[in-house]
Amino acid sequence: MTESPPDISLDEIRSLLRGIPGPDMEARTATAERERQLTKPAGALGRLEELSAWLATWQGRHPPRLDRPRVAVFAGNHGVAARGVSAYPAAVTAEMVANFSRGGAAVNQLCATFDAELRVYELALEYPTRDFTEAAAMDEADCARAMTYGMMAVEDGIDLLCLGEMGIANTTSAAALSMALFGGAASDWTGPGTGVGGARLEAKTRIVAEAVARHQDAAHDPLLVLCRLGGLELAAIAGAVIAARIARVPVLLDGFACTAAAAVLQRLDHHALDHCMAAHCSAEPGHRRLLAELGKVPLLDLDMRLGEGSGAAVALGLLRAAVACHTGMATFAEAGVSGPG
Amino acid sequence: MTESPPDISLDEIRSLLRGIPGPDMEARTATAERERQLTKPAGALGRLEELSAWLATWQGRHPPRLDRPRVAVFAGNHGVAARGVSAYPAAVTAEMVANFSRGGAAVNQLCATFDAELRVYELALEYPTRDFTEAAAMDEADCARAMTYGMMAVEDGIDLLCLGEMGIANTTSAAALSMALFGGAASDWTGPGTGVGGARLEAKTRIVAEAVARHQDAAHDPLLVLCRLGGLELAAIAGAVIAARIARVPVLLDGFACTAAAAVLQRLDHHALDHCMAAHCSAEPGHRRLLAELGKVPLLDLDMRLGEGSGAAVALGLLRAAVACHTGMATFAEAGVSGPG
Repeated sequence: MTESPPDISLDEIRSLLRGIPGPDMEARTATAERERQLTKPAGALGRLEELSAWLATWQGRHPPRLDRPRVAVFAGNHGVAARGVSAYPAAVTAEMVANFSRGGAAVNQLCATFDAELRVYELALEYPTRDFTEAAAMDEADCARAMTYGMMAVEDGIDLLCLGEMGIANTTSAAALSMALFGGAASDWTGPGTGVGGARLEAKTRIVAEAVARHQDAAHDPLLVLCRLGGLELAAIAGAVIAARIARVPVLLDGFACTAAAAVLQRLDHHALDHCMAAHCSAEPGHRRLLAELGKVPLLDLDMRLGEGSGAAVALGLLRAAVACHTGMATFAEAGVSGPG
Repeated sequence: MTESPPDISLDEIRSLLRGIPGPDMEARTATAERERQLTKPAGALGRLEELSAWLATWQGRHPPRLDRPRVAVFAGNHGVAARGVSAYPAAVTAEMVANFSRGGAAVNQLCATFDAELRVYELALEYPTRDFTEAAAMDEADCARAMTYGMMAVEDGIDLLCLGEMGIANTTSAAALSMALFGGAASDWTGPGTGVGGARLEAKTRIVAEAVARHQDAAHDPLLVLCRLGGLELAAIAGAVIAARIARVPVLLDGFACTAAAAVLQRLDHHALDHCMAAHCSAEPGHRRLLAELGKVPLLDLDMRLGEGSGAAVALGLLRAAVACHTGMATFAEAGVSGPG
C-alpha cells in the first residue's frame, strides 16, 4: 500500500453499510420517459435499455454519463498458494502487476479499447495472507484496513467502477468464501482456476472443504468470514463496492473472485449490491452458481476466466453502446418517424 | 438502387457459391501460436480468442485487422405488410432510412461508438415485393438483381462486414423462409416482430403458414424459396454474404431477418456460412431456433430485437476487444512472467 488509509474498524464498516443510499427513482423515471420517445419499437434495445436505466438510477442523474470510467484491479497474495492450489507460482501476482504497469496485459488493451482509466492497487504483495487451512487469513484490523484501502479507489469524478483482481490462489479463497456464505459442497464451488485438473483439482477441493470446516464458528458473520477465508485484494474489493455506493458510482463486477468478495456484502444487506451489475459469467464453474445466488443475470457469457477486471472491461463496451443510444438517438418527433399504426 | 448492378442469373449465383474459398489454415495456426505465448493462462480469454482466430482464418491473414469495418444495412419493402402483420405502417421503412441518413437511429450511435462506417442500401422502397400469400414475392431476375446489388457492399479495403436490415414486415418473411427451409410449424418461427401480440400475432402466424403452403413446390430449391418468400433486402444480404466470402471479409450476422436471409445459402452449401458469426441472439423467438439449426452460437444475448444491424454493431465491440488483446498483449517472454509451475 502506497498510502495509509485511516484506521476504521469492521464495526465502523458495518455502520457505513447501514447508511448506504437507495436508488434515485427520479433519474430512473426520466430515463424511461426518454427511452419511450426514441426511434425504435418499445424495448427493442433490450438489455441496453436496462443498462441506461441502471446507470442513471445509481449515478442519480439523467442522462447517465460515462465521462470517466475506471477499471480498478486489486492485487494480493494468498498463503494458501503454498499448498499448490494454483497452476502458477505465487510470484506471478507481482509479475503480472509489473505487466499491468508496462501495459502488456489483457486489461490494458481492453481499457484502451473502451477508453477507461486503469488503476492497479497492490496490497502488500510481499506479505501474503495466512494459509486459511491453518489460521484466519487476516486479522480483523488487517481486513478492515484492506477494505478502507479499497474505498480509496472511488475518487471524485469517477462515474463507473469496473472491479477486478489479481492474486494467485484466489479462486481457492473465492470458493471457500462462497461455500461459507451460501452452503453447498466444496465441489460446487471449486474449479480449475488458472488451470488445475485431476488430482490437483481434487486436492484444491479438499482444501476448500477443510478451510470452511475450520472456520465454521465465523459462519454467522459475513465480515468474519471475509477475515478468515478472504484475501487482502478481496477485502479491498468489498470496500470499493461500499464506497462506490456511497459516492453514487455504479459498479461492474468481474469474475468469480471479484463477485465472491462483493457477495460478502450482500449477505450483510440484501440490497448492498443493487448498484452492481455482473459484467459476465466466467468459465470458472462456481461463478454461475454464485451469480444465481445473488440473483444477478450476467451481461456477457464468453467463457472468459482471466480475472484482472477483463470481463468488466469488456462489458464497459456494452455500457458505452447503451449510453450512446440513449443520449444520441432521435425521438419519433425529431425524426418524423410514424409510431405504431 | 442508385447504381445498376450487372445482370446475373440465379444459376450464375449458384456457380459463384460452388467456387467460394475455404478457411486459411496458415493464418489460423499463426493465431494459435501467438495466443499460446500471451500473458494469460491458456484459453483464459474464451470466446475473444475464438474471435481472433475466426477473423484471421477468414481474412486469410495474421494478425487479423479491423481497420475498416463496415455496417451495411439493406432496406426493402414487403407486399405482405398490407396484411397488417407489423405493428408499424410500411412507410416506416423509408422514414427510418431517412433517420439513418440524418444520424438519428440506434445503429448510427453504435457505429460511432465502435468506429465502423455505416452504409445504407435502399432497394426500391417504392416498389415493395408482392404479397407472397398471393404470388411469388419476387421474380427470379429481380431476386438475382437484388443479390448482385448486395454484393456491391463488399468494397475493396473492407475487413469486416456487419449485416443488417430494415423492412417493415420482414420478420414475417423471415419466419416463412425459415419454415420453408427447415420445417416445423408456423408458430415455431413467428413472433411479435416490432410488437404484435394476441389476435394479430395469430393472424401473422396463419399468414406464414399460408405462404409456405402456397409455395411448397419451390421447397426443394433454397434460392427459389428466397424468390418466393423473401424480400429485396433479404436477397441483397444473401448476395453480400457470398461476396464477402469471396473477398475474404468475415461477416457478423445481425438478427432474425438477417440470419434467415443467410440461411438460404447454408441450405445450398453446408459450409457457405463458415465465415459468418452470429452477433447476437434476438428476442424474436424464431432466431434462437434458427441459430440452433445453423449450429451458430451467438456472441451476445441481450434481448435486443431492433434489427438495422444493431446487434452486429454491438458485437463489433467484442471483435475490437479480441483484436486489441491478440495484437497488443505482451508475451510471457517479453513481460518476464513465469509460466505454470
